[in-house]
Amino acid sequence: MRKRFGKQSVKFENRPVVASTASIVGDIEGAGPLGNYFDIILEDDMWGEESYEKAERKMYEMCVKNAIERLNITSAGIDCLLGGDLLNQLISANYAARQLKIPFLGLYGACSTITESVLIGSMLIDGGFGANIACAASSHFSTAERQYRMPLELGQLATPTSQRTVTGAGCIILSDGCRPDAKKAYSGCSVVVSCGTIGRVIDLGITDANNMGAAMAPAAADTIVTHLNDFNKTVDDYDIIVTGDLGTFGTEMLRDVCQEKGVDLKKKHFDCGAAMFAPEQNTVCGASGCGCAATVVSSYIIGKMISGEIKKALVMATGALMSPLANLQGESIPSIAHAIVLERE
Amino acid sequence: MRKRFGKQSVKFENRPVVASTASIVGDIEGAGPLGNYFDIILEDDMWGEESYEKAERKMYEMCVKNAIERLNITSAGIDCLLGGDLLNQLISANYAARQLKIPFLGLYGACSTITESVLIGSMLIDGGFGANIACAASSHFSTAERQYRMPLELGQLATPTSQRTVTGAGCIILSDGCRPDAKKAYSGCSVVVSCGTIGRVIDLGITDANNMGAAMAPAAADTIVTHLNDFNKTVDDYDIIVTGDLGTFGTEMLRDVCQEKGVDLKKKHFDCGAAMFAPEQNTVCGASGCGCAATVVSSYIIGKMISGEIKKALVMATGALMSPLANLQGESIPSIAHAIVLERE
Repeated sequence: MRKRFGKQSVKFENRPVVASTASIVGDIEGAGPLGNYFDIILEDDMWGEESYEKAERKMYEMCVKNAIERLNITSAGIDCLLGGDLLNQLISANYAARQLKIPFLGLYGACSTITESVLIGSMLIDGGFGANIACAASSHFSTAERQYRMPLELGQLATPTSQRTVTGAGCIILSDGCRPDAKKAYSGCSVVVSCGTIGRVIDLGITDANNMGAAMAPAAADTIVTHLNDFNKTVDDYDIIVTGDLGTFGTEMLRDVCQEKGVDLKKKHFDCGAAMFAPEQNTVCGASGCGCAATVVSSYIIGKMISGEIKKALVMATGALMSPLANLQGESIPSIAHAIVLERE
Repeated sequence: MRKRFGKQSVKFENRPVVASTASIVGDIEGAGPLGNYFDIILEDDMWGEESYEKAERKMYEMCVKNAIERLNITSAGIDCLLGGDLLNQLISANYAARQLKIPFLGLYGACSTITESVLIGSMLIDGGFGANIACAASSHFSTAERQYRMPLELGQLATPTSQRTVTGAGCIILSDGCRPDAKKAYSGCSVVVSCGTIGRVIDLGITDANNMGAAMAPAAADTIVTHLNDFNKTVDDYDIIVTGDLGTFGTEMLRDVCQEKGVDLKKKHFDCGAAMFAPEQNTVCGASGCGCAATVVSSYIIGKMISGEIKKALVMATGALMSPLANLQGESIPSIAHAIVLERE
């Protein structure tokens, strides 16, 4: 069977099964419209740790552990952990991997990390290189804010295009077949990854670190249009087209850019970042961060697929490859979006 | 054919061919004992750019371009670029990928990035997901020093266990078969990737940011021992066992740790970090950085394989997952080592 399609896409012969998922979010995310879908809602975003960074690491580790536990196996049954986070040197993922003792491949795609992980994980499963592969990503409002923008103590006011980094971690375990031992309520034996599109780095010259949506929208548009061309599909072939964390401003921009390219997204598009918070939560343009798509896809989207409400979803997490240093040196903020297609069998 | 071996290893059915390589190094690396093997030696480590970071990005981009050019194809013929660097948000790789316009999967394994890339790239090639996949990594003394340690302006003295970060970039292009059009002098159609071992994050509690060798040696030992066990091999099955950048101190430590586990490395071991500089170059314990293994493997090691001097090499780049922030919060420095086996057919 042909596995490579068009310019950037791949199709799986032995379609990896979404065998288990898990999500953990902070209290503000838990109070939002999707709150009921997350597995664990923290009361305190320090989670008993000494720093926000250590709390994020704990979310990452516990999230992977919970997904493994739901599969009724031990961590020794996981062939490989794929993933990362927003922090420099991927400290959440790396230190979690140290505790988990699972072979680990660190990835960095900023907020696109969860679909980058599932895309690579699916290629490894289909290629025969593992029976169970865990894919996970996390972010934390307080760790991201102080690394990428300003010290928290400044109490910086939100700008009109800003988004709130999600405090949360999501894990998706892919398997090379259905796992009948998995706890039924959690496992999604019925959901598979059928194909995907590897993103390119796109840059239209945005330089505002408080406007991630505008930086990421062109990358999302590029990946959607390429995906549809590579497989000769239209928007109508999908029940839903999910983006990671464009927020309300980025969502508008994505729809406009796609419209210009002859792709009408309006009826099918769902942005995790725009859906995460309610307007009265005052997060301006919504949510962002690795944890945004990771938590929403692993809970809400896959949940709706298991229940049969969604049959075919094109899911692309979007990453702004934002570097405070490169920004200070006059560089704009490039972005990337990796897409996967989830199908209910 | 079985593709998964033991706890952490994989074996390739359609063994990816090392179809092309390229390397670029700084002037100090070029003046070292391996100088003759590198393709391009810079006279000035700013390379006409406005900052060291921009110079590193240029090295990354030009190195990938050179490897592609040697394969007598255009960048449109590369299905995917895999790789990363040491800088936060992988700015060298990300901004290079923006210029190259190749589908890009960002990886972070600190100095283990080149073997992480080749390992994943080989799984993708063997899985049928691409015909040509480029794997690249870079580092730069001046960008790494000021990000991880001290401002360059301080003129910090080297400590007794310190290593000098390599200024350099290396690229290895893997293909799903021999490319007869490739320029023969550069291509290594005779060299294939036969198998590999995915590393685990190992941490023996080292906290000294100036002793990367000691932090990484336990991870290298873990991967070597696991690899030999997974495939039921001994050191004698290899002509050479290559580590990335342990330096002289880390090399001693690796040999001791392996000896304790019943593995005698002495006769076969070669460390790129220990080989890069001559004693009179005063780099204390040798070289380190993503660019160390990337440049030495893509030039010297693969060169010796093409010429037939080396038939079978176990190559593992080693990464200290060092985070200045985690360090300040009292964390030790975990490490990881990913292994690939290169064979001359």
